[in-house]
Amino acid sequence: MTEYKIDFEPIGRRIFTTGEESLLDLSQKAGISLAALCGGAGVCGSCKIRCVEGELNPLQIEEEELFSAEQVDEGWRLACMAYPLSDVKIEVPPESLTTTQRLQTDGSVRDIALAPNVHLKNFTLPVPDQVDLRADWERLTETIPLAKECGWDVNLSVIRQFSSQIREQGWSGVAAFNYQGQVLGFLKTGLDCYGVAVDIGTTKMAAFLVNLSTGETEAKAASMNPQISYGEDVISRIAYANQGLAQQKTLQTRLVEEINQLIGGLCDSARVATDQIMDYVVVGNTAVHHLFAGLPVRQLGEAPYVAAVHQALNFPAREVGLFGAPGANVYMPPNIASYVGADHLAMLLASNIQKRPETVLALDIGTNTEVSLLKDGLLTSCSCASGPAFEGAHIHAGMRAAPGAIERAKFFDDEWHLATIDNLPAVGVCGSGILDIVAELLESGQIDATGRFAEQAFRRVTFPKGDAIILVRAADSGTGKDILVTRGDIREIQLAKAAVRAGVEALLRATATQAREIDQFLVAGAFGTYLNPVSAMKIGMFPLLPLARFQQIGNAAGAGALEMLLSTQGRLEAEALIKKMTYIELTTDPDFMTSYVDAIGFTKERKEI
Amino acid sequence: MTEYKIDFEPIGRRIFTTGEESLLDLSQKAGISLAALCGGAGVCGSCKIRCVEGELNPLQIEEEELFSAEQVDEGWRLACMAYPLSDVKIEVPPESLTTTQRLQTDGSVRDIALAPNVHLKNFTLPVPDQVDLRADWERLTETIPLAKECGWDVNLSVIRQFSSQIREQGWSGVAAFNYQGQVLGFLKTGLDCYGVAVDIGTTKMAAFLVNLSTGETEAKAASMNPQISYGEDVISRIAYANQGLAQQKTLQTRLVEEINQLIGGLCDSARVATDQIMDYVVVGNTAVHHLFAGLPVRQLGEAPYVAAVHQALNFPAREVGLFGAPGANVYMPPNIASYVGADHLAMLLASNIQKRPETVLALDIGTNTEVSLLKDGLLTSCSCASGPAFEGAHIHAGMRAAPGAIERAKFFDDEWHLATIDNLPAVGVCGSGILDIVAELLESGQIDATGRFAEQAFRRVTFPKGDAIILVRAADSGTGKDILVTRGDIREIQLAKAAVRAGVEALLRATATQAREIDQFLVAGAFGTYLNPVSAMKIGMFPLLPLARFQQIGNAAGAGALEMLLSTQGRLEAEALIKKMTYIELTTDPDFMTSYVDAIGFTKERKEI
Repeated sequence: MTEYKIDFEPIGRRIFTTGEESLLDLSQKAGISLAALCGGAGVCGSCKIRCVEGELNPLQIEEEELFSAEQVDEGWRLACMAYPLSDVKIEVPPESLTTTQRLQTDGSVRDIALAPNVHLKNFTLPVPDQVDLRADWERLTETIPLAKECGWDVNLSVIRQFSSQIREQGWSGVAAFNYQGQVLGFLKTGLDCYGVAVDIGTTKMAAFLVNLSTGETEAKAASMNPQISYGEDVISRIAYANQGLAQQKTLQTRLVEEINQLIGGLCDSARVATDQIMDYVVVGNTAVHHLFAGLPVRQLGEAPYVAAVHQALNFPAREVGLFGAPGANVYMPPNIASYVGADHLAMLLASNIQKRPETVLALDIGTNTEVSLLKDGLLTSCSCASGPAFEGAHIHAGMRAAPGAIERAKFFDDEWHLATIDNLPAVGVCGSGILDIVAELLESGQIDATGRFAEQAFRRVTFPKGDAIILVRAADSGTGKDILVTRGDIREIQLAKAAVRAGVEALLRATATQAREIDQFLVAGAFGTYLNPVSAMKIGMFPLLPLARFQQIGNAAGAGALEMLLSTQGRLEAEALIKKMTYIELTTDPDFMTSYVDAIGFTKERKEI
Repeated sequence: MTEYKIDFEPIGRRIFTTGEESLLDLSQKAGISLAALCGGAGVCGSCKIRCVEGELNPLQIEEEELFSAEQVDEGWRLACMAYPLSDVKIEVPPESLTTTQRLQTDGSVRDIALAPNVHLKNFTLPVPDQVDLRADWERLTETIPLAKECGWDVNLSVIRQFSSQIREQGWSGVAAFNYQGQVLGFLKTGLDCYGVAVDIGTTKMAAFLVNLSTGETEAKAASMNPQISYGEDVISRIAYANQGLAQQKTLQTRLVEEINQLIGGLCDSARVATDQIMDYVVVGNTAVHHLFAGLPVRQLGEAPYVAAVHQALNFPAREVGLFGAPGANVYMPPNIASYVGADHLAMLLASNIQKRPETVLALDIGTNTEVSLLKDGLLTSCSCASGPAFEGAHIHAGMRAAPGAIERAKFFDDEWHLATIDNLPAVGVCGSGILDIVAELLESGQIDATGRFAEQAFRRVTFPKGDAIILVRAADSGTGKDILVTRGDIREIQLAKAAVRAGVEALLRATATQAREIDQFLVAGAFGTYLNPVSAMKIGMFPLLPLARFQQIGNAAGAGALEMLLSTQGRLEAEALIKKMTYIELTTDPDFMTSYVDAIGFTKERKEI
């Protein structure tokens, strides 16, 4: 059997294959996070690569549609469609990689008293000699009064590391333990201990490195969830995990590796050693939560769609392979429901929703959108599959919120007025940008109530695949090509906004609430922070409300995770909050589908207020 | 013609006779391999048995010479000289048996009440549907009252397996949990749960599969400790582990693999699935304990030689890679000292030493020999490096106690009289054989007090490497070659017996005890069970004591592990026992080396009693 050598450049990874695997599969094996929003179906075009040397299988139909003759000549292919027929050298362009982009790390943290679940105790031990032959661990536990009194619950990893560490440190140091009486690890005298809060989204994730002695967040960073390479939404990832234990393990391993890489970077920038990390709080939606913890997801993907576990979990970070002190603990707050996870709970905590006296609607827009409504002290929640359009996926010129992305748009004076991130020449459109564009197209009558382009639409062009407008001409764009908005893009936004709106309506219906009774409308998440609520109202994604009622609260899920890291009180509050919640399963709500279909069109709403 | 019923115990064989045949002949007819080196001439004493009930012919002259008055009172006879005059019950001591590869699995377990650390609870769960969308785990914990009341401590592995298992089982089954409130795993309704006791010796190991519902040991097996390939004694294994983490990991992995293989075999023979195993008790010496648990051993090999930990450990079996239910627990009893491990503690527990009122010496002879002395209710222990000579290592024709091994030897009528395991042609010498041989050589004047062969030694030969005797001629041996006993072999036995004796002397000295005050001399372990105490006294390994004071108690460490598996009370007793113990470090005992050097020679001891 012939074996081919595959070199990925400029990353410099090499892998060998007998030719049965696609370049997408090979890149994943080589540890390269190629974007593959459609999961390798040849549809999304996000895994494009260039073959610089060697021979691949012939071009497939999907690729012929996607690439120009010129691009084909240059060697462009879709990694998911390409199979090596010889040794090959592959160039991976940066835009095909899932890498650092706009940070999803800004959420406001309430002012809370520092009371983390880590305590420190200084100690100095007598040195063993021929008379004092106690074991290392007994030497410690018989010296520290707390341990002497109540014993210590300790995992093997901690004892495993102690003997060499205590000798290196000259028989003195600092013991870190938690309120459950577990030893987490040891520090050199004078060093601070740290915690990490992680918010794992379906698409993006954010991590915060916190000094637990001072409460300061010393570093934060964000990156893409590398599981994207195996499916852009949780349903396709569950399908991938269901292929077998190896696939499920891959999803976990790639995620943990990426988090470790984030943490490594955070620790470098804060000049902290990873084994100073004693505590973690990790939030995510239920599917991500399960995939991270290595819990089964099959039953989440099959009717009646139930989680393996809802309750809060505590387990050693080593159990999932996270960096940290040998006994470092991971706290995962409880999940609300199968499709409303601990990230939403964290968001509710950070928004202080339980202290707000009014009727409050809280919304976290992502590939999955979670909505909660507080009314008369009771919380009702639901979840709707809004898809990744607002992350830039499925949109013809869509991109993440990275430099050069169009993030704001206005149409007036017969011209588009656009703002891009970092004011660079436009290279694509991100979520808040496409929202504005659709709203403006509607407002100016360039699309009708069904989403079709009007005859007179500005710079309208017609393709075999459907109508479009030229948003930016090739001459003005950063890519040298026209940037288009297509009928398909409008359709994607219609589906996404209809899902969000139908979720909101379901909660209003379930609680017999009129939209105008919503006193505060909280919008969380990266897209939620940057969107223009006016645009969202114009296209009918949000009900019509006075603008002052909207509050865009940033990455509140991350902020909530941070709170639970800074204070065990935060954990108790979250666990108390979940007891007050009612969950509505929309798939079994007979009115949901009607309300969803109704919301797809752009019908003018009567201003109720 | 009268017919008598003859019962051989504890083997449980029965045969009928009209009284013309000796018990030796009868035992052979009953399929019991009694040793009979002199062929039934009443000379060698190797076929000794005890008459527990019934009447035999009068004592013969040969027997009067051999047995003390006390022994005669106890019913001791030579099988070759004894003829039944009624129904009789005969006790066959293990040392009189020649059997195939003596498993190191026979130790007597005290009669204890079954109270394992595993409890079972049957349950049937409501099936999830569109109305009842609880997570799988909450569905369980809200159904079982115990869990509802106090919550359950659970490790991720258990939750990971639950969702698929409960669906396979149709939403009903049996939950196994322990007194600490930890969930261990789940069984199909009607299946029993199991535990495994493992005794890991430096050279050999034994495992017992126990039905925790009935208390029955359903299978047992023994094998070699695979770490032998990396060093025959613990010191050389510590040196190997010190080469790096990979090496230490290898020692652990190979050991666990071998234990898993043993367990796989046990489960096959008992028709039990490995995931029915819920609990483990594992004992071994301190170094083996550390290597098994993945604990550091460097500090065990460097002055002042301290352990990483002494306290009892509980950890998930998965943590070290052992087979079992997802939450199966491993209990490792506490270590006594750096070189007196939990295996010795288990042996003391099984021998019921704390309930014996007299002065008791307990000895576990292995590559490392542990000795404890009970006097006035206090226990004093020490450890000495006796080396692997009694396991057959370092002996020119040495081998394990396998078929064809010479296990008994007598020299009389100018000839060697040998017994081999399974009566096969001799292929080598095992521990009890070499002990007999050295004792006989000494007794017959063929070696002098320094261990040198006398000129007139029988079939003496001289090699460039040193003197030797031909024990079995090539023509008679199973290998087709002469079987030799060399000067080097004598030397090895001298060093080994000196270490054991010096350990005994150290305890006597430390407690101001005279040897003759020892009321009971317990000898444990495989070699300890099959050795001839008379030979051990002749060469000075044991102090001179009346034969009746010796008790050979088999694999008492394994029996102790079994007790702790069968009853949590056993664990408490072991942990209480250790608090009463004083450890003497011989490397810092100024008299130990003198006493050791004194014991190397074969000086006649004055019979003190």
